[in-house]
Amino acid sequence: MSAEPTPPNDTYSYLGPAGTFTEAALAQVPEAAGKHWRSVNNVGEALDDVVAGRSTAAMIAIENSIEGGVSATQDALATIPDLRIVGEYLVRVNFVLVARPGTTLADVKVVNAHPVAYAQTHLWLDRNLPSHGHIPATSNVAAAASLLDPSTISGAGMADAAVAPPGIVGHYDLDVLATDIGDNSNAVTRFVLVSRTVAVPERTGSDKTSIIAELPDDTAGRLLEMLEQFATRGVNLSLIESRPIGDELGRYRFVIDLDGHIRDERVAEALLGLKRFSPNVIFLGSYPRADKLSIEVTNRYADDSFLEARQWLDGLIG
Amino acid sequence: MSAEPTPPNDTYSYLGPAGTFTEAALAQVPEAAGKHWRSVNNVGEALDDVVAGRSTAAMIAIENSIEGGVSATQDALATIPDLRIVGEYLVRVNFVLVARPGTTLADVKVVNAHPVAYAQTHLWLDRNLPSHGHIPATSNVAAAASLLDPSTISGAGMADAAVAPPGIVGHYDLDVLATDIGDNSNAVTRFVLVSRTVAVPERTGSDKTSIIAELPDDTAGRLLEMLEQFATRGVNLSLIESRPIGDELGRYRFVIDLDGHIRDERVAEALLGLKRFSPNVIFLGSYPRADKLSIEVTNRYADDSFLEARQWLDGLIG
Amino acid sequence: MSAEPTPPNDTYSYLGPAGTFTEAALAQVPEAAGKHWRSVNNVGEALDDVVAGRSTAAMIAIENSIEGGVSATQDALATIPDLRIVGEYLVRVNFVLVARPGTTLADVKVVNAHPVAYAQTHLWLDRNLPSHGHIPATSNVAAAASLLDPSTISGAGMADAAVAPPGIVGHYDLDVLATDIGDNSNAVTRFVLVSRTVAVPERTGSDKTSIIAELPDDTAGRLLEMLEQFATRGVNLSLIESRPIGDELGRYRFVIDLDGHIRDERVAEALLGLKRFSPNVIFLGSYPRADKLSIEVTNRYADDSFLEARQWLDGLIG
Amino acid sequence: MSAEPTPPNDTYSYLGPAGTFTEAALAQVPEAAGKHWRSVNNVGEALDDVVAGRSTAAMIAIENSIEGGVSATQDALATIPDLRIVGEYLVRVNFVLVARPGTTLADVKVVNAHPVAYAQTHLWLDRNLPSHGHIPATSNVAAAASLLDPSTISGAGMADAAVAPPGIVGHYDLDVLATDIGDNSNAVTRFVLVSRTVAVPERTGSDKTSIIAELPDDTAGRLLEMLEQFATRGVNLSLIESRPIGDELGRYRFVIDLDGHIRDERVAEALLGLKRFSPNVIFLGSYPRADKLSIEVTNRYADDSFLEARQWLDGLIG
Repeated sequence: MSAEPTPPNDTYSYLGPAGTFTEAALAQVPEAAGKHWRSVNNVGEALDDVVAGRSTAAMIAIENSIEGGVSATQDALATIPDLRIVGEYLVRVNFVLVARPGTTLADVKVVNAHPVAYAQTHLWLDRNLPSHGHIPATSNVAAAASLLDPSTISGAGMADAAVAPPGIVGHYDLDVLATDIGDNSNAVTRFVLVSRTVAVPERTGSDKTSIIAELPDDTAGRLLEMLEQFATRGVNLSLIESRPIGDELGRYRFVIDLDGHIRDERVAEALLGLKRFSPNVIFLGSYPRADKLSIEVTNRYADDSFLEARQWLDGLIG
Repeated sequence: MSAEPTPPNDTYSYLGPAGTFTEAALAQVPEAAGKHWRSVNNVGEALDDVVAGRSTAAMIAIENSIEGGVSATQDALATIPDLRIVGEYLVRVNFVLVARPGTTLADVKVVNAHPVAYAQTHLWLDRNLPSHGHIPATSNVAAAASLLDPSTISGAGMADAAVAPPGIVGHYDLDVLATDIGDNSNAVTRFVLVSRTVAVPERTGSDKTSIIAELPDDTAGRLLEMLEQFATRGVNLSLIESRPIGDELGRYRFVIDLDGHIRDERVAEALLGLKRFSPNVIFLGSYPRADKLSIEVTNRYADDSFLEARQWLDGLIG
Repeated sequence: MSAEPTPPNDTYSYLGPAGTFTEAALAQVPEAAGKHWRSVNNVGEALDDVVAGRSTAAMIAIENSIEGGVSATQDALATIPDLRIVGEYLVRVNFVLVARPGTTLADVKVVNAHPVAYAQTHLWLDRNLPSHGHIPATSNVAAAASLLDPSTISGAGMADAAVAPPGIVGHYDLDVLATDIGDNSNAVTRFVLVSRTVAVPERTGSDKTSIIAELPDDTAGRLLEMLEQFATRGVNLSLIESRPIGDELGRYRFVIDLDGHIRDERVAEALLGLKRFSPNVIFLGSYPRADKLSIEVTNRYADDSFLEARQWLDGLIG
Repeated sequence: MSAEPTPPNDTYSYLGPAGTFTEAALAQVPEAAGKHWRSVNNVGEALDDVVAGRSTAAMIAIENSIEGGVSATQDALATIPDLRIVGEYLVRVNFVLVARPGTTLADVKVVNAHPVAYAQTHLWLDRNLPSHGHIPATSNVAAAASLLDPSTISGAGMADAAVAPPGIVGHYDLDVLATDIGDNSNAVTRFVLVSRTVAVPERTGSDKTSIIAELPDDTAGRLLEMLEQFATRGVNLSLIESRPIGDELGRYRFVIDLDGHIRDERVAEALLGLKRFSPNVIFLGSYPRADKLSIEVTNRYADDSFLEARQWLDGLIG
C-alpha cells in the first residue's frame, strides 16, 4: 500500500480499516498487489468510488454462510447501474477477543463488537463471560481500534475488550485474550470484486454468473415460470434470494447466482429467456468461481448441442 | 385432368379414384388446377410418387375429427425422409347412400362401404336398414364403383347399395337413395399436401408447424420436459398424438402440431430446445393454416421481444 | 367351450371366431377356462354384451406394438359408462399364409387379409408374391374361413390364400404355405379384460391403472398442467394417447396408463388432483400388469411417506 | 401495563423499551390490552420468554418493506421448536428527529440511531445535516433514551439528537426537531405474534400460512419441484426467502408465506406434498392476515372440489 497519490486505475476500495475480512479478501487479488488500497466505511462508499472513477474496483461482502446475503450489497447492486462483478473470493470468518495490553479475561466486563460479529460469537461470550455487556461497533476493526482511542466518538473506550478479525494484531497494539471464538468454525464470507469494466472475463470452465431479476407481475406461479427459464436450458442455480423492491410490501426482486458463464450457450439462452420474461433483469457479471469447482454439464446442454441444433435449424429454414 | 403424359412437376398424387374426399381436398389447391392428378391406392403410394419424383406433391388425409389421426399417414411421415408438408386443407365429411338406377331403399339388403365410412354412418344404417349386411371396400369410391362392375375382384357386385362421398354422382351413373347419412354432421377431415420442396412457405400470420419427436429415454417425466420446451417459449400445441415406434411395446414417438411458423422466433427457439432434448426430431413443415385463424402472441413471445433480448445479450458480451 | 346355454356370469365375449388372437388372449385367463366363450364381431358388440349382462367380461384388443392404440376400443371405453378393466394380457402377433389343401405358393394370385394383418405382412407378401392382389376381410379368421366357403357374402372365395393367426389350423382344414410372415417378429398386441365389476382387484405390486381424461379448456399449457398432477406425486405414465372427442376438430381426450394401483397412495393422490383439474375423468381400472414388472417407487412417494405426512398434518391441525 | 407481578399467561414480550414500533404492533392486539407487557432486548429473548413459559406470546418483527426479512427472526423461528405464529400486524414505519429540550436543528452535530433506522433516514440526514456524525444504537428507543442518560454504557450521551419512532415523545421528555424524516413514506414493518399455543386459529377467509422448508438435496431443479407442490394445488406464495442453514456455504432453507389456512383443503394438500418432498418442514402457523385481503380461489381449488374428488375416489375404491 502506497502513501503516494496513485492514478484511479490503480486504486481498490474496500471496507476498512486495515485488518478487516474485506482486506483479507482483497489480499487474494493478484492484480491488486502493490496498488493503492482505499479504505471506506460501507458498501455504498465503495461502489460510489467505482462509479465516480476514483477506484478501479471495490471489494465487498455479498454473503455470509451464517448470516446470509448482505442486504446492503444486494440492494446496492440492484440499484446502481453499470457495475460488474469480476471476481469472487472466500474468507474463512473467525474471531479473536482482543484487549489493551495487560488486560486478562477476568477483567473483561464490557465487550465492543460489530453486531454481526457479536451474533457469531454469542455462545462463546455467554459461556466465558456470562455477565458481559455489549457495545455495538460500526465495524469489526473499529471495535478493536477504539480500545486504544478513548476519545472515539462512539465512547467505546468504556469497553474492556473487542471481538475482532485475527488479522487485527498486525495493525494494532493489542493482546489476544482468546482465539477461535466464533460459534461456527466453518463460517465463511463470500466477497465479490466489483468494477465498471464491461468486458466479461474469459471462460475458465469454473464460472459463476450473477443476475438480479423482477417478476412481471403478481400472478400465481410467476416464480415457477422464471425458474423454468433456467431448468429448460439445464442451468443450475446456486443461490436465489428475494429482496424487497421497496415500493410496497410484497414486491420482490430476486438475486440469483447460476452455474456457468454468459458465453456458455445454455447460460446465454437462459438469460435471453429471462430477459423476455422479466421487466427488469440486471446482469451483474460472469466470473471465475472462488471454489474452483468445475461445472458438470450433460451433453444435451453442452455448447456442441446448441451448435448442432442451430445448424439443423438453419438447414431447415434455408 | 389431362390424359397426355405430363412432366412430373405438374403431377399431383391423391387417394383416388375420382370422387374421393381426397380429390375434394386437392380441388382446393390453386396450383393444382389444370395439372395432372394421379390417382393412387394408399398413402404409401402417394408418398412414393413424391419421393421418386413422379409427382410434385401428394394430398393425404392426416386427421379426422371423429376417427382421429390417420396412423398410416403419421407413420409414413415419421419414416420416409425428406418430405415436407406445404399446405393444409379441410373437407367436411358427409356421405350419401347410392345404388344402381332403379333401386329403392326398400330393395337394399347389403351395403358396400369402407370400414371408416361404415363406422361413421352406422347409426343411420341401423335405424333405416336394420337388417342390412356389410361388405367392406378398400375405399369410399371403390364401394360405389363396384356397384357397376360385377366382375370386381372384391365380389362387391353382390351389394345393393354403397356409402359414398357426395361428389360420387359426378363420376358414376348411380342414384342417390339418401343424403347426409353421416352420424355426425360436423365431421371434418384434415388433409395435408406433401412435397419434397425444401423451401418453407412464407409466413402468413396464420401458420402451423408440424413435427415428430422421440423422447430421449423412459425416465419418468420426460414428456413433461418435452412440453416445457414449448411452454417456456409461449408456443401452443394444437395436436399431440403418440404413435408406437414399433420396435417394442411402450416406446412412442409424438406427432405434434404447433401454432406458428418456423420463422417465428418463439417457434424457432422451441425447435432448437426440442432438437437438443430429443434424439430424433423430424421437421415436417410450416404452412398456412386451413382455418385461417390468426395466432395471438403475447408481447413477451413476439419477435420484437426476441430481438430486443438478443441485442441486450450482445451488448453484455461485447 | 360349451354348446349348452350357460348363465351370463359364466360367459366371456371375444372377437371371434375361434382362432383369433383375441381368443389366444382369452385362453390366458384362468377364470375363463371351461366357461362359455361368446364370439362377437367387433369391440362394440363385446362391450354391449357386458353392459347388457349377457357376459361376465369381454376380451378386447387395446394396443398393438406396430399399429398403436386401437381407436375403436379407446373410444368405446371413453363413452360407455360403468366398465372396468380387470386384467391385461399380451399376445405375440405373428401370421401364417394358409390356403385350401393342395394349393402351392406358386398358385397364389389373390390374398384375403384383414387390413391390419395385411399391413403387417406387406413386406413378406411383396417379396414372395410380387404381383398378388388383396381382398380385405373383416377379421383375421374371416379371411381364412372364407377360403372354405365360396358362398360367403364377401365374395372372398375368389382368394387363393389368406393371412391368418397361427392358431387357425386348429379350427379349419387349411394348409400352411408359409409361417412367420409378419414383418416385425416382435409385434405384440395388448388385450384387456373388461367387466362391470366395480370391485378393484387387489394390489399385486405390479399393477397398472387406466384412465381417460379431458382438459378443462384450450388454454395453452393445459396438457403440461395435467401431466404435473402425475409428476408431483411421482406417478409415471406408460402410455398417453390423444383421441378426438368428436364434436369438433382440435378437441381431444387423453387415454392414459400409469404405473401403480389406485390403492397406492401416490396414485390415489394423483387421481384426486386429476379429478379436480379435469371436467371429465373416467377411471377404467387398476389391474395386474401383463409384463409382471414390479414398480419402483422412491421413498418419497411410497405409502409410508404419505402416511407419515398425514399424521404430521393431523398433529398440526389437532 | 401493570407494575404488579402477573401470571405468565397474561404477559406479552416485545422488543422494548416503550415507544418502539414493536410496542405499536402489540398495541394492535386486543387480547394484550391491560396485560403485562414485558420489554426485552432482542428477538432471542422474546422467544425464550415464550419457550420458557414466562410469556403468553411475543411480538417480533419479521419483515420490513425496505430492509426485507428480519434474519434473526427467521433463523430463530427455524431453530426454536414448538413455536406458532398466531397473528400478523403491520406498522407504518416513520421517524422523527428528537433532541434534549432547547436543542435546535442547527445545534446537531452527532446523531444517535439504530443502523436500520439510520439507513432509512440517510437521505434526509444528508440533505439537512450534511456534516453530521453517526453513533449506532442497539434499538430505536435506546437511541432516544440515551440522550437523557449521559452515563449510558454506550456513551451515546455525546450525541445531540436521535432518530426515533414517533411514539417516543409519549415516554421521554424530548423535543421533536423534525417529523417524517423517513426516506420512504410507504415503509411498513410486518410483525408476528408468536406463542406456544398449538391450536390453530379459526379460518377467517383472509388467512396466511407460514412455513420453513429445506430442499432434499442439491440436485438441479429441486426448488422448482418444491414450488410445483404449491402450484399443482393452486396455492399462491406471497413470500419466499432463502436463509443459509449455516453448516456450509450454499445450503439454504426457505421461509415461505402462502395464501390460505391449513384447514383449506388446497393448503393442507400442498403441505402434505411438501412434507413428503422436504426432509425438514416447519409449520409456523395459519393466522388472520393483517391486510384483511380475502383470498380468491378458483373453483378447481375450492374445498368443494376437494370434497367431490374424494367422494369420487371413495366410490371407485369401494
